[in-house]
Amino acid sequence: MQPLNFHPAGRHYLQIPGPSPVPDRILRAISYPTIDHRGPEFGALGRKLLQGIGRIFKTAHPVVIYPASGTGAWEAALVNTLSPGDAVLMVETGHFASLWKKMAERLGLAPEFISLPGIEGWRRGVDAEAIERRLRADPAQAIRAVCVVHNETSTGVTSDIAAVRRAIDAARHPALLLVDTISGLASADYRHDEWGVDVSVSGSQKGLMLPPGLSFNALSPKALAASQSAKLPKSFWAWDEIVAMNRDGYWPYTPSTNLLYGLAESIDMILAEGLDNVFARHRRLGEACRAAVRAWGLEIQCVEEACHSPVLTGVMTPEGVDADQVRKLAYEHFNLSLGTGLGKVKGRMFRIGHLGDCNDLTLMAALAGCEMGLQLAGVPLAGSGVGAAMVHLRSTARPAARHPAA
Amino acid sequence: MQPLNFHPAGRHYLQIPGPSPVPDRILRAISYPTIDHRGPEFGALGRKLLQGIGRIFKTAHPVVIYPASGTGAWEAALVNTLSPGDAVLMVETGHFASLWKKMAERLGLAPEFISLPGIEGWRRGVDAEAIERRLRADPAQAIRAVCVVHNETSTGVTSDIAAVRRAIDAARHPALLLVDTISGLASADYRHDEWGVDVSVSGSQKGLMLPPGLSFNALSPKALAASQSAKLPKSFWAWDEIVAMNRDGYWPYTPSTNLLYGLAESIDMILAEGLDNVFARHRRLGEACRAAVRAWGLEIQCVEEACHSPVLTGVMTPEGVDADQVRKLAYEHFNLSLGTGLGKVKGRMFRIGHLGDCNDLTLMAALAGCEMGLQLAGVPLAGSGVGAAMVHLRSTARPAARHPAA
Amino acid sequence: MQPLNFHPAGRHYLQIPGPSPVPDRILRAISYPTIDHRGPEFGALGRKLLQGIGRIFKTAHPVVIYPASGTGAWEAALVNTLSPGDAVLMVETGHFASLWKKMAERLGLAPEFISLPGIEGWRRGVDAEAIERRLRADPAQAIRAVCVVHNETSTGVTSDIAAVRRAIDAARHPALLLVDTISGLASADYRHDEWGVDVSVSGSQKGLMLPPGLSFNALSPKALAASQSAKLPKSFWAWDEIVAMNRDGYWPYTPSTNLLYGLAESIDMILAEGLDNVFARHRRLGEACRAAVRAWGLEIQCVEEACHSPVLTGVMTPEGVDADQVRKLAYEHFNLSLGTGLGKVKGRMFRIGHLGDCNDLTLMAALAGCEMGLQLAGVPLAGSGVGAAMVHLRSTARPAARHPAA
Amino acid sequence: MQPLNFHPAGRHYLQIPGPSPVPDRILRAISYPTIDHRGPEFGALGRKLLQGIGRIFKTAHPVVIYPASGTGAWEAALVNTLSPGDAVLMVETGHFASLWKKMAERLGLAPEFISLPGIEGWRRGVDAEAIERRLRADPAQAIRAVCVVHNETSTGVTSDIAAVRRAIDAARHPALLLVDTISGLASADYRHDEWGVDVSVSGSQKGLMLPPGLSFNALSPKALAASQSAKLPKSFWAWDEIVAMNRDGYWPYTPSTNLLYGLAESIDMILAEGLDNVFARHRRLGEACRAAVRAWGLEIQCVEEACHSPVLTGVMTPEGVDADQVRKLAYEHFNLSLGTGLGKVKGRMFRIGHLGDCNDLTLMAALAGCEMGLQLAGVPLAGSGVGAAMVHLRSTARPAARHPAA
Repeated sequence: MQPLNFHPAGRHYLQIPGPSPVPDRILRAISYPTIDHRGPEFGALGRKLLQGIGRIFKTAHPVVIYPASGTGAWEAALVNTLSPGDAVLMVETGHFASLWKKMAERLGLAPEFISLPGIEGWRRGVDAEAIERRLRADPAQAIRAVCVVHNETSTGVTSDIAAVRRAIDAARHPALLLVDTISGLASADYRHDEWGVDVSVSGSQKGLMLPPGLSFNALSPKALAASQSAKLPKSFWAWDEIVAMNRDGYWPYTPSTNLLYGLAESIDMILAEGLDNVFARHRRLGEACRAAVRAWGLEIQCVEEACHSPVLTGVMTPEGVDADQVRKLAYEHFNLSLGTGLGKVKGRMFRIGHLGDCNDLTLMAALAGCEMGLQLAGVPLAGSGVGAAMVHLRSTARPAARHPAA
Repeated sequence: MQPLNFHPAGRHYLQIPGPSPVPDRILRAISYPTIDHRGPEFGALGRKLLQGIGRIFKTAHPVVIYPASGTGAWEAALVNTLSPGDAVLMVETGHFASLWKKMAERLGLAPEFISLPGIEGWRRGVDAEAIERRLRADPAQAIRAVCVVHNETSTGVTSDIAAVRRAIDAARHPALLLVDTISGLASADYRHDEWGVDVSVSGSQKGLMLPPGLSFNALSPKALAASQSAKLPKSFWAWDEIVAMNRDGYWPYTPSTNLLYGLAESIDMILAEGLDNVFARHRRLGEACRAAVRAWGLEIQCVEEACHSPVLTGVMTPEGVDADQVRKLAYEHFNLSLGTGLGKVKGRMFRIGHLGDCNDLTLMAALAGCEMGLQLAGVPLAGSGVGAAMVHLRSTARPAARHPAA
Repeated sequence: MQPLNFHPAGRHYLQIPGPSPVPDRILRAISYPTIDHRGPEFGALGRKLLQGIGRIFKTAHPVVIYPASGTGAWEAALVNTLSPGDAVLMVETGHFASLWKKMAERLGLAPEFISLPGIEGWRRGVDAEAIERRLRADPAQAIRAVCVVHNETSTGVTSDIAAVRRAIDAARHPALLLVDTISGLASADYRHDEWGVDVSVSGSQKGLMLPPGLSFNALSPKALAASQSAKLPKSFWAWDEIVAMNRDGYWPYTPSTNLLYGLAESIDMILAEGLDNVFARHRRLGEACRAAVRAWGLEIQCVEEACHSPVLTGVMTPEGVDADQVRKLAYEHFNLSLGTGLGKVKGRMFRIGHLGDCNDLTLMAALAGCEMGLQLAGVPLAGSGVGAAMVHLRSTARPAARHPAA
Repeated sequence: MQPLNFHPAGRHYLQIPGPSPVPDRILRAISYPTIDHRGPEFGALGRKLLQGIGRIFKTAHPVVIYPASGTGAWEAALVNTLSPGDAVLMVETGHFASLWKKMAERLGLAPEFISLPGIEGWRRGVDAEAIERRLRADPAQAIRAVCVVHNETSTGVTSDIAAVRRAIDAARHPALLLVDTISGLASADYRHDEWGVDVSVSGSQKGLMLPPGLSFNALSPKALAASQSAKLPKSFWAWDEIVAMNRDGYWPYTPSTNLLYGLAESIDMILAEGLDNVFARHRRLGEACRAAVRAWGLEIQCVEEACHSPVLTGVMTPEGVDADQVRKLAYEHFNLSLGTGLGKVKGRMFRIGHLGDCNDLTLMAALAGCEMGLQLAGVPLAGSGVGAAMVHLRSTARPAARHPAA
């Protein structure tokens, strides 16, 4: 076999905000022999998966699963619902919102970006009022879609999607609501149907705890209707044939069988823990992480209390400190991978992922690695972040539910 | 874990022409923990992979690896090189050639199909002379690309790609040559550079012995140049950013890390066996399989001796015999999955895959299952196909090379 | 990783009479992370296992599971029940019966061997009448135990254990009945309680479809009583502490945790298929295998119709033909491992295993490999064994039950 | 598959002093298909293994590998070298020394125990001078063996084996030196040949990072000579046939094939890191752990500075605090398994394992779990152990060597 001994002795701590660490159960499941994607077992697996993934998105409508990574699902959301030259309203919440806008441009759409100066917009959630104002200023209804990012992986800001829905409704505007919840799904509270989202975009390698390689479009009836008349060329991403064949649990072209084994396992794990318990676990770990950052005396990238992400925390380094140097020191000395600052905040922040298959002690390991890495980099710390996080975790700890058989 | 006990006792024989059985080494490799796709280990893995996959395609030019299944790579080949309304010349060699043409239409291209009446074209390789005639009849050079399928998975016909190249050259036509070798690569002889192919399209789940989920575009300098001016909208499939970032072993968006682990293993296995040995192994198994079909007194789908596929064999059932009933009997009684007849030959043929990680005894198991399945279906057989295959295998058997350590 | 690419391209056919091929489900289960053998999850696992393994032995009494291979369980059966110098009656049914006798000698017991001249005893089951006669000739009841092999792995002979019980009872002799069913359990019908066995010895790597490394002693109350006064030194093998701690699902010393994961999986698989179905599957495969050997015109090692093993078939090669040369040819040309002739029959026979996770097509693959190997060795064959086996399999084939979800 | 979801969300921290966490590379290796233990690949594997394991023990003499757990190797060391009634000198360093003595009694030997009152002996290393005195008082040389534990898993005390050797030599006594390094090997410095050990006993589930199920006897020529005349009955454990067959890489009975795959992987990993680097890593983690215990104001079980174990640390809880309650709280709230107090120290101590595949952040996770568990149990702490450990780790951290390919 190839030498997969990438890392030095002991467990590697993969605390980037995705791909998140894949649990052993899922790794074993994806290594099961590939079966015939046209055989009866596959159909049974497909029907189970499609029913289950709807429960994760909280939708009664179709969820399209692509044998492709998350960027593909962004493209799918756009090409299925829009036509060349269509105006779309996007909000600059961070690097990924910017990349989605760039994609819209490459595909021949006319995205309009609601932005704040400098990095201000990168520290706040989506401004629903600004969206409402802009839509009210569009009496001709030229704007065909509002595209927002639920959880900005580049910043650690989670936006209020229900508020965006209310803004669109308040403006009595027919634009579709497209939401990127690639890093939000199955970690942060998300409700496709209740929040009136038309297309929810997600990926496998975050809250679903899978390797990258699967992505999703959850649909609304309005989105399905829009796809009938949308004029951007589409074939691989086209919903129509997929949704039709999914009724029997199959796909029009070869699905990513082994990652689907993993998805079945992931859905079982998440539903067994309970979606609300999963969300609460993520919130609590996020609180402990922020307690650590505050104790260090460092700034958190997100400045809105209501928008702190349960998925990751962006930590700003003091002036003159290269955040990537901190990451490098933590990586080389402590076998810890942290997320880099992207785009506008390159070198000024690092990101701590606390999503997916994360628990108290894994977070503590990550925070210890950060604290020692910051110190090795010569960053003066106001206090012990590790100690502050322990106070929070200890005071909120509950005995875990165990496997029934135990 | 989920009950992955799809099949009854004993090994399932997956003898469809892809996905092919994934070797244990690869299954183990893909179950290794996901790493940071921006970290240094990943870059080293990426550089190794990209160098290795070029050797499989026999090309010195870039190979783009998509975190998507093979149908996506079809789309990528078209959207990177062509503009809306472009004429493309395609050849109806079977079901997959037809699907590719349908995709070209959905994407707004103007495909022209060289076909023969009924299923005649489905029993023969690409007619290079017909291509040459058509290109000579295009003095305005409106045809921008010639698209052919190297190994038609639906029929078991392997076409002469070098002849197609000669035909284009003889017609002094500038059309690009796009070749689908999804089921040919790493099983049937293939030479991207030597044969002057501009885009070779392939997938992971055939000769590369991986699960589905990865796909490929091998490029030529001419194809890269064409992609600068091609006007079909593209973003996910766009070569430019991928080729640029691949220089360091990275990808612009999240790659399918775990399937890439498998690809590294696959490349190691194939190069260790030797590409020419891999091709010879496939040819020999194909010969044994055809010996069996002839002994049964059944017709082989492919009628051109030079075009018999080393990857799969299409078996036509006699008038009045439902081929899918044979498949069903073999599946239910003998735990054997065979390929169905697709499109025009639905119900009139079944397909035996002998590709990838296949060897003599696995083929014998498959043929025994076919022979018993045919008999259970009441098909009168002229003789023992199993016996005929054994004669061929025995008389051509050579002691295998062993692992050096043994 | 180490290069575990032992074998050339394609699946290796491990058709020795154990270790038998380990199903993927079990291989995945044994690769699950090791847990604390003193923690609550382990206790739950242990209790489930101990309950389940009793169902496989068909006993309501304790089954001791050793973290050791099968030879250890032979020793355990002797040292727990016997004292230095004790007379034990054994029957020379083959190589393994001879090894067990040799072990008894090394341990300081006084085994007496019921044998036939030459290899005659190696072609027949245990002669229960001879046992009865011998016990009747022991009025002082010096013989403390009768030790027999249920399924002789070296010959392919399965003895009638119920008849041995009846013989002991008829002689009104108090000797314990110790039975080696290492290769019989979970393949051939076996009933510890009903047949009045005092100690049943078994191992993991045969019908249980596990890797080697676990072994078993199923006990009777009489055996447990005997262990109180037996004087051979014992510590690791001593039943007392193990049986006591097993009540809570634990072991006095570190158990083989990962192989126990596999055992749990194995028990689930066997009980889901149904023990009687498992036995019937083995019987049918044995019949097909013998049909092949007869068609070849070769002799089957076992000459008693009632004693043909459902686990393996011993094939005698004609005078002048080195059976190991046939094995070598099949191994080198067809990636097939067959069992060698052991002890008295070295070079005169080879053994075909058809146990554990075996099914129709795997047997056909093995028989095709044998047939071609025999031909490569220049052995004249009377007819097609492969053809004869197919006649049997086809005429007795039934559609398989599928996974409920399918 | 069986529901192997023993633990709640996130990684379980198995910080008991063995079984230690098994690295993914080893778990994948042991899940590779079982091969024929009589075939040529197995012989190659066996020869490689036997050569490699000698390097780990630092011996040029035979190492016997048993398909059995560590307790078996204790028994093997005794039964191969001793005769019924033989006097053996043992030293009560803790629970495992006591169990080995109990085993010697069960096997019919006459062990004599050097002990200190109460738990005093459980806090110190082997007193080599006491051994020397006792041997000098044995002019008749009735004592046949000195048996000591290198690393007491129950206490966290590592004894000076070279000093024991010097003591025996100083007394000019011919007793054999048998050493239990079950939890010491491959974690604490160990030198079978240089230290003049006659039989070294070890197991797989500690420093070798394997699941339990393999165990070892490293031999000296003197031990081999003794085994010729030793009179305790032995068969399974007998060295003679094993050593003879090992020359070709095979075993007389079925070895534990899949665990041997893991052992090959383990040896590769250890030798690649370098034995001295492995020892240094363990020492440094032990120092950090003790810094934490001292900062908490708790007592370390081992009171001799020179004998602190690099493998585990025993932590004594204050009067009135049930150590098992601390363990239970840490387990239920923080998914952390700690070792219990055994025998004489039951309820008064817990053990933190920092062996095998452990690194800085995993130790920090474990210490955070201990600290929070102690606090939940109401134990007043003098200070932050986590902080103290970080000071040590940070000040001694070095950038890790990476995989060559990276």
